[in-house]
This record gives sequence, structure tokens and C-alpha cells, in this order.
Amino acid sequence: MSAYELVIGDKSFSSWSLRPWLLLKVAGVPFIERNVRLRQPDSREQILTYSPSGKVPLLLTEGFEVWDSLAIAEYIAECLPEKALWPRDQMARARARAISAEMHAGFPDLRNELSMDILNRHPTPELSAGAARDVARVQEIWRSARAEARGGPFLFGHFTVADAMYAPVVTRFISYNIPLDPVCRAYADVILDLPAMIEWTVGAKAETA
Amino acid sequence: MSAYELVIGDKSFSSWSLRPWLLLKVAGVPFIERNVRLRQPDSREQILTYSPSGKVPLLLTEGFEVWDSLAIAEYIAECLPEKALWPRDQMARARARAISAEMHAGFPDLRNELSMDILNRHPTPELSAGAARDVARVQEIWRSARAEARGGPFLFGHFTVADAMYAPVVTRFISYNIPLDPVCRAYADVILDLPAMIEWTVGAKAETA
Repeated sequence: MSAYELVIGDKSFSSWSLRPWLLLKVAGVPFIERNVRLRQPDSREQILTYSPSGKVPLLLTEGFEVWDSLAIAEYIAECLPEKALWPRDQMARARARAISAEMHAGFPDLRNELSMDILNRHPTPELSAGAARDVARVQEIWRSARAEARGGPFLFGHFTVADAMYAPVVTRFISYNIPLDPVCRAYADVILDLPAMIEWTVGAKAETA
Repeated sequence: MSAYELVIGDKSFSSWSLRPWLLLKVAGVPFIERNVRLRQPDSREQILTYSPSGKVPLLLTEGFEVWDSLAIAEYIAECLPEKALWPRDQMARARARAISAEMHAGFPDLRNELSMDILNRHPTPELSAGAARDVARVQEIWRSARAEARGGPFLFGHFTVADAMYAPVVTRFISYNIPLDPVCRAYADVILDLPAMIEWTVGAKAETA
């Protein structure tokens, strides 16, 4: 039996669920997946059977609940020190946490105007000034991290929590055909080509079939 | 010379700034305070001279920038292991991170309808259903933590990052005269009575004088 169960929402649009799911998959950690359909009359009631916060994702480990995508990531990173899910260098780690936390609490206009819709493609929308600034800031974050990264194609070289935190945004940029500079386009492709990302998308198709 | 500089906004209303400021003060860490007045025509420009995210708070340490209240807290906690700014027990630590992250990304209606206004007192407002749910959830979080806490009056016994994350909400509840159950009222008083909280409020008065 797996030591971890992960409660998640719909793969088509639950951006918060994708983060810890992807982290566990890329880290190669087996887990049991529990799916809750969101945006249904009984969704909240169903989630509350698992989660005190009333939200997904939620990690269950030996009956103990850890909720919130970032707190789950911290917990998994602690449990698997050999995977270096945060960068080993202290300054790089601080930077990875800063951009992860910036994504966790910020980018409201981007979330609002480019809601995750992983199976569909839309024409590039007219963005508000706030959303345009969010899009530019995400690309600035990626460029800046990639300029310092050594030893791999991810934000801090090898795959870390920061990549899991930004993976939903990668899918938003693709779904809404947002123009990306070459560095950001290359990074987006690295994320999209992860076998785990492909598995998530296949799961989204199966859910909506 | 101090190893830390903290860039913060107005003490009257910058709830995000209060968190790392309080954490450093309670931990007894000397730091240089840099103040930026928010909501001014040149605020964004001023902040960008320090902060790549365009937001406060920002910690500068030996020329290196760490931004975002939660990421700064993680960095300080790492630098001062002897202070146990996260609980030492792994499950308590996971729980402290879950409620800290829940506050970091959540409670939009509470933020909106009870904006931090530390020097003023308002009559209890009519809350939207969302804000009322947020207020109830915060109290549920406090009660649940206090029921498990040992060895002190804070959420996890001694003062941790979780207390710093919830301190702004304590001031909101007081400013808007929100009814609190006895456990939450007692916890709120513990936070308000911290010498550092009193110092912050004195600072807010001086700024607006």
C-alpha cells in the first residue's frame, strides 16, 4: 500500500491540483489518486469529507492531512531529501521559494483571464493591463531563473517545486496562444514534454469523455 | 552592521509587511528597516529599486534579495534553526505550513471587506457570505491549533511563522469589531500584547502623524 494519497480536482482545470500531482510523479513517488469533480452541487461536501480547508489538493499520509499545494510541496520535499525538490544551494533555494510563493499568492488577473483549460485552444485574447503585466512578469521570472540555471533544462537546472508551481501557467500560455520569447518557449516545451504532463492530459481527456 | 535589511510598506495597512517584520522582531534578530510609502504616484517605481517582483516586503541579506512574506519566513527559519520558527515536530510543522499557506493564498473576501487599518476602529460591518465563511474558517484554524498546542499561548505553543502569518488578521478582527469566541479572543490578545506588535502600532501612528 502506498504511503501517500492525493485528493485532486478535475484535471482539465484544477491548476492547484496539478502542482503536487506533478511533483510526486516526477519524483517517482507512488501514490493513490482520489478524484473529486469540482463545480458540482455536492463538490464542497465531498471535499470536506477529506479536507478541513474545503479545498483541493490534499495529501493524506498515514491518516494525517496536509493541505495546500505549496505546503504539500514543502512536506514532500522534506520527506524526500535525496530528490532535492528544493535546490541544494541556499540562495537558489531562497529564490525558488520566492518565485513559488509569488505564484502561490499572486497573478490574480492572469488566473482570471487565462483560466486553466488544458484540453482546449483559444485565440489569443485581448488582455487587461494587469493580465499583460502578469504574463510579462512570469516570463521575466523564467528568463531570470534560466539565465542562472546549471545542469538541466528546468528553472533551477533539475526539476524542483518551482517547476511544479509554474506548470499550470505553462498550460495556460499554450491554451490561449500567448506569445513567448524563445527562452520561455523552450522552457514551456520542456514542461509539456514531461511524461507526467502527458499522463495528466490523457487523464483530463478520460475525465471529460 | 546588520546582516538583514527589510523593505516594508506603511505600517497602518501593509499586512504583508507586518508578517516578516514581526517574525524578525520576535526572533530577536536585528535588522535595518527600509520604508516605502504605498499608494503614492511613485510607489511602484520606488519598490522596483529594491524588489524584482514590484512588491513589498523584501528581505536583503548581503546584497541578495528574498521576496514574498512566506518565502522570507522560510529563509529566516532556515537561518535561525535554534529559534524553531517552524515547529520541530514534523506533523506540527506540516500543519503550520498548511495553515500559513492557506492564509498566504486564500481569504480574498476577508481581505477585501476587512482591509487592514490598524489605527482605526469601525462598527461591525455587514459581511458577504464569503467573508463570513472566511472569518469562521480563521477561527476554526485557531481553535484547532490551540486545542493541540503545548507549552505556550501561540498556535503551536511557542511563537512560529504561523503566528506571524495570522497577526494581520488579528488586527483586522479588532479594527472591525468581529465577534470572537473565547479561545480566539484569548489568542488575539496574546498577539496584540506582544511588545513587537505594540512597537509596530506606535510606528503606524508616527507614520500618519
